[in-house]
Amino acid sequence: MKINIIGRGNVATHLVKAFQGKVEIFQVNPHSLENLNPEVDITLISVSDSAIAEVVAKLPPLSGIVAHTSGSTPISIFEGKVKERYGVFYPLQTFSKNKKLEYNKIPFYIEGSDKETAQKLFNAASLISSNVRMADSEQRKRLHIASVLSCNFVNHLWALSDTYLAEGGLDFNDLIPLLSETMNKVKTLRPKEAQTGPAVRGDRNIIESHLSQLENKQDLRNIYAILSDSILRMYWK
Amino acid sequence: MKINIIGRGNVATHLVKAFQGKVEIFQVNPHSLENLNPEVDITLISVSDSAIAEVVAKLPPLSGIVAHTSGSTPISIFEGKVKERYGVFYPLQTFSKNKKLEYNKIPFYIEGSDKETAQKLFNAASLISSNVRMADSEQRKRLHIASVLSCNFVNHLWALSDTYLAEGGLDFNDLIPLLSETMNKVKTLRPKEAQTGPAVRGDRNIIESHLSQLENKQDLRNIYAILSDSILRMYWK
Repeated sequence: MKINIIGRGNVATHLVKAFQGKVEIFQVNPHSLENLNPEVDITLISVSDSAIAEVVAKLPPLSGIVAHTSGSTPISIFEGKVKERYGVFYPLQTFSKNKKLEYNKIPFYIEGSDKETAQKLFNAASLISSNVRMADSEQRKRLHIASVLSCNFVNHLWALSDTYLAEGGLDFNDLIPLLSETMNKVKTLRPKEAQTGPAVRGDRNIIESHLSQLENKQDLRNIYAILSDSILRMYWK
Repeated sequence: MKINIIGRGNVATHLVKAFQGKVEIFQVNPHSLENLNPEVDITLISVSDSAIAEVVAKLPPLSGIVAHTSGSTPISIFEGKVKERYGVFYPLQTFSKNKKLEYNKIPFYIEGSDKETAQKLFNAASLISSNVRMADSEQRKRLHIASVLSCNFVNHLWALSDTYLAEGGLDFNDLIPLLSETMNKVKTLRPKEAQTGPAVRGDRNIIESHLSQLENKQDLRNIYAILSDSILRMYWK
């Protein structure tokens, strides 16, 4: 199999490494599209979301499938721009350039303009990972929203805790063993079963006491109230 | 040093293990307080929060210090009930009975009815852990609120993501490599510096698109809106 990878960023770099020894790889700078090998099975566009449309518009004629690697870009970006076969080849992981990754465990989400195209992209991803799934653009959007909830918002709760603890002369690092334990639990239990804390116990006295402690911190207080209510609704109605 | 530990639960069991070989330990069932050794340096009450007051009321006369191990119980629970010296000896960790723990890394928070008492409790905790701090009841409350934000609410966001992904035929387990990465980052960066996602980038188009995707999920939509606003306020005002 022959694969072009357009891009020099973190995802492109890791894909090149992951495919090494398994397929013939041609990595091309997005500003030198004239250097693309036109005779390949798959051309992967692995550039920033905002640059995908421009690369698509400038693609020379290519045989094979064209696919992008973005979680938040719909497959429709190719419509009318790429003749015939195109798709999405999306690895769900944060990539830092110098970090070693177990590629075999990275989930890949595949979409194709037709069944055969999807199957070929699926097969290519299966050379790298044992966790490859079909997912349409709607499902990728759902994955993106879930990542915002599960990673971005989680980190923000930690940032708010850091500030709040520092104001009391306390150190957020002391919480890290607890965070690790919270994280470890969801590796074996579903999060709904792993829930602890005052709200899941229905302990409204503690909730009220915490809310009154946060009286002059409007932002924290709102977040505390809305998340406690959400837990109470999940377990107590 | 001689220490009584009242309780048979997870915290009591781990404290007995942690003190093993370092002090003389007497573990006593809370229903057999008549078996307490009256001649000890410290008596630790390590029972459920709601049972502490009852144990305190039934304590026989003891020499030495009496302390409880609860994060959310103020030191004032001893006032007028225990003569002279009392305090709090609070290890910040979730304890499961059969799990091995590195006791040396568990943060201990100490409070005492007077300076000398606090110092003695501090010294006892230092036999177990290299991370012992003084903290008054106000600071312990702050720690408790921060734990709710950083662990309980975080787990709830994962539970909401799990449900939302399952509705779309997707698997929460696919997110676990991303969660681990999010967790690993705050071991070396402060969470405020580790923040990623649409809100910290100020990408209001993505935020709006996600909110409209969540239109008929009032609970998720509110949480998404309030946490995105909080991130926008932290970085963009």
